Amino acid sequence: MAKKQKQVRPKARLPKGLRDVGPAETGAMAWMIETIRDVYESYGFEALQTPAFEYSDALGKFLPDQERPNAGVFSLEDDDGQWISLRYDLTAPLARYVAENYDGLAKPFRRYQTGDVWRNEKPGPGRFRQFTQFDADTVGTSSVAADAEICMLAGDTLEKLGIPPQSFQIRVNDRKVLDGVLESAGLDPVAGENAGRRLTVLRAIDKLDRLGLDAVGALLGPGRKDESGDFTPGAGLERGQITRLLDFVAAGTGTRRQTLDALARLVGDSAIGREGLDELAEMDQLLASADFDSDRVSFDPAVVRGLDYYTGPVFEAELTFEAADEKGRKVRFGSVGGGGRYDGLVARFKGTTIPATGFSIGVTRLYTALQALGRIDRRAARGPVVVLVMDRENLADYQAMAQELRRAGIRAEMYLGTSGMRAQMKYADKRAAPCVVIQGEDERARGEVTIKDLVEGARLSEEITDNTEWRQGRPAQFTVRAADLVEAVESVLARQSG
Amino acid sequence: MAKKQKQVRPKARLPKGLRDVGPAETGAMAWMIETIRDVYESYGFEALQTPAFEYSDALGKFLPDQERPNAGVFSLEDDDGQWISLRYDLTAPLARYVAENYDGLAKPFRRYQTGDVWRNEKPGPGRFRQFTQFDADTVGTSSVAADAEICMLAGDTLEKLGIPPQSFQIRVNDRKVLDGVLESAGLDPVAGENAGRRLTVLRAIDKLDRLGLDAVGALLGPGRKDESGDFTPGAGLERGQITRLLDFVAAGTGTRRQTLDALARLVGDSAIGREGLDELAEMDQLLASADFDSDRVSFDPAVVRGLDYYTGPVFEAELTFEAADEKGRKVRFGSVGGGGRYDGLVARFKGTTIPATGFSIGVTRLYTALQALGRIDRRAARGPVVVLVMDRENLADYQAMAQELRRAGIRAEMYLGTSGMRAQMKYADKRAAPCVVIQGEDERARGEVTIKDLVEGARLSEEITDNTEWRQGRPAQFTVRAADLVEAVESVLARQSG
Repeated sequence: MAKKQKQVRPKARLPKGLRDVGPAETGAMAWMIETIRDVYESYGFEALQTPAFEYSDALGKFLPDQERPNAGVFSLEDDDGQWISLRYDLTAPLARYVAENYDGLAKPFRRYQTGDVWRNEKPGPGRFRQFTQFDADTVGTSSVAADAEICMLAGDTLEKLGIPPQSFQIRVNDRKVLDGVLESAGLDPVAGENAGRRLTVLRAIDKLDRLGLDAVGALLGPGRKDESGDFTPGAGLERGQITRLLDFVAAGTGTRRQTLDALARLVGDSAIGREGLDELAEMDQLLASADFDSDRVSFDPAVVRGLDYYTGPVFEAELTFEAADEKGRKVRFGSVGGGGRYDGLVARFKGTTIPATGFSIGVTRLYTALQALGRIDRRAARGPVVVLVMDRENLADYQAMAQELRRAGIRAEMYLGTSGMRAQMKYADKRAAPCVVIQGEDERARGEVTIKDLVEGARLSEEITDNTEWRQGRPAQFTVRAADLVEAVESVLARQSG
Repeated sequence: MAKKQKQVRPKARLPKGLRDVGPAETGAMAWMIETIRDVYESYGFEALQTPAFEYSDALGKFLPDQERPNAGVFSLEDDDGQWISLRYDLTAPLARYVAENYDGLAKPFRRYQTGDVWRNEKPGPGRFRQFTQFDADTVGTSSVAADAEICMLAGDTLEKLGIPPQSFQIRVNDRKVLDGVLESAGLDPVAGENAGRRLTVLRAIDKLDRLGLDAVGALLGPGRKDESGDFTPGAGLERGQITRLLDFVAAGTGTRRQTLDALARLVGDSAIGREGLDELAEMDQLLASADFDSDRVSFDPAVVRGLDYYTGPVFEAELTFEAADEKGRKVRFGSVGGGGRYDGLVARFKGTTIPATGFSIGVTRLYTALQALGRIDRRAARGPVVVLVMDRENLADYQAMAQELRRAGIRAEMYLGTSGMRAQMKYADKRAAPCVVIQGEDERARGEVTIKDLVEGARLSEEITDNTEWRQGRPAQFTVRAADLVEAVESVLARQSG
């Protein structure tokens, strides 16, 4: 007798760092994306969609090699032998698109794009290998009016999503100002010998929010021992240089004008620094004329965003309210998006520099913020009206009732299973149905239907402890003529909304 | 002297079978997806999103092997050595999701999902390696009420998208009826010896739309020589069997009741055939009670959809109007979606059978259909109002005007480039701007702005051939007080919409 081979069934599970998204979050995300889109379109930005794959060499940054073809990105070899990769952001595909279609574009070119991006990185709590971004970029102009516009766009977007003005701030810095301060502190940004030291300085400044001014000072000087006893070597700057830099990062506490004045003193006569200050001054004027005051858009020299990449103004959209972190501690919510001017990206393809500036929102992170602020509409989670099936010979009648409700614009379904009344009621509860529609033999004979309000029912069953009283009253259900079904259900929905 | 290495710049281009999508199609697709979503939600379907990747073994069908890991799907080896693949449809991820979360689901479980899918296949005209699907499925009930509901859903969706009722039809067949007819024609579906012959029969029936009844008859019998002289071997059936099958495929021309009567005669006393007829009869009753007549949902035995996969009713959403094909010939537009009952899919994971039925819309194909029908709103393609920049010292004023328009709900932008008046007007034309706002030195001195209506202007410039007349009249532009900017632009937009 032949050995019977056991059939191996695959296990139903997802690869690491990926997740399913249910109805409540999907609905909220759709609303967020439509809201952001409407603001972006109102500013004249145009939609673009690029495919998930790009040639790996077009993405740049992470070229696949034979040893580790998947470092950072998901890459595979196409059947013609060329490597293709899933996009890891929406900026690299934009650069490819602009280079490919430059002559045909109306310039300056404003485009928005939303979609998923993929990172082949180690996942962690809240860190997934697929997530959603929403980007706006303006390509083909070096005018800081484009940068100012991006900041206004970011502010208007957060406001339209229902974030109160006192709970967010768009913080702006300029890479050139930073270069100027470093130059006037004797750290010439052009000289190669200071490259490593400059990076240490940038990293130190970037830690201001988390560690505070004293720690940054230590990291700019001899170095710092943290609570665990680990020692981080410092940039080794002299006392005067450190003071200058600390004054610099602390200069962003006042209005934009006050910050500009403070920065002017620190930049001294550095040419690049002066240029950065002029850019910020022009942005200030443009922002002020469009009623964006310093509370909504501030200048903050402590904003350091991967500055290697950026060439001018940089922005960060920061939520300033406090929320609990993963350890339950109250912390400032922090960044939900950022961007800046990057004049070198398209040049990778075309050789010539094409100026560009843009802003990217982390939609999933923003969703978490809106949840914390109670801005996600709970009513969106309300389920459909459920028409119960009391006898299966009359399925067509129940189906017709569901259809009648739908045609009146009411979300409704007929129960499709084979279980009895009790299980159907449990099903309706699980579906968050606002009410159920019941037509048993008696109701049918009289041409009536019974509506049972599940929200009111749940409330009453908490109040009424006497079982007899409950059964006698049945206060949450009522019977109407079958012809009045729509009207009766509408009255229940109206009561629940009101 | 060292040889100078030439820097190689990547070429800006996309991998084959992929494409970028611009603003007009993106806008139309968003509208379509929101419309479909609203109908599906009204039927009580719940949103689900699954990630792009699944474990290759969970997708089934196309297991990657070392030789051709990418046959049909895009697959790659994850860093833990397991193979993962991009989804090629939305049904396989649903099966994985249901198997993984079965106990927690409210059953029967109605879910919808929209998103991109990827096929690693040879691209062709209109055939891409990434495209968008929109699926609705009901899992956990074998009631044909679920199948009838899916047909109603499909019909309501096409109607909500603006397709006139006379231009589409949901065509329904039942795999069991087909099995019954084959059985009563002496082709027992269970007997393994007829498996190859049955496949030849199904393929012949599937060609009815394209080749007509005579050709199908030849393919059921001795075989057929086509116009090019190529010979396709037939199923080798006897004359009586062929007549029976041709009567079967031609039985779908009348009302649902007429088709049922004709099928009853053909099925004879085949048990499986009778079961299929009972299912269709129940669907007929449910559809009729919800006012879906035979014009909208018909029974058509010629509908053969990869029947290996399906186990009961199958559906096809067909657009019946004529459109030009790629060779310019007028042909019936054809299918934009389909589906059916598949009771075996979740069993791959769980061992036990979980009944399910569903429907998938090819959104990109449906977009082409709506374009052909003139249902894509042209006004959605209207660009923003462009505020021209007449002197760069007053950028802040122009920015403020654009912002004022946006705050009034009007899509508006300030020109961000450095070119002169003529180039700015060309830019506004390219952006499909409805009008431009102009404030030169004179207007500013008088506190005025000029609005130039580009739509009216284009119309007039076609009518007026006398250049002098044109310059003197300037009929498409007018000047108002700066305080009346919003009102003036609104009047232009209203005139263009009206």
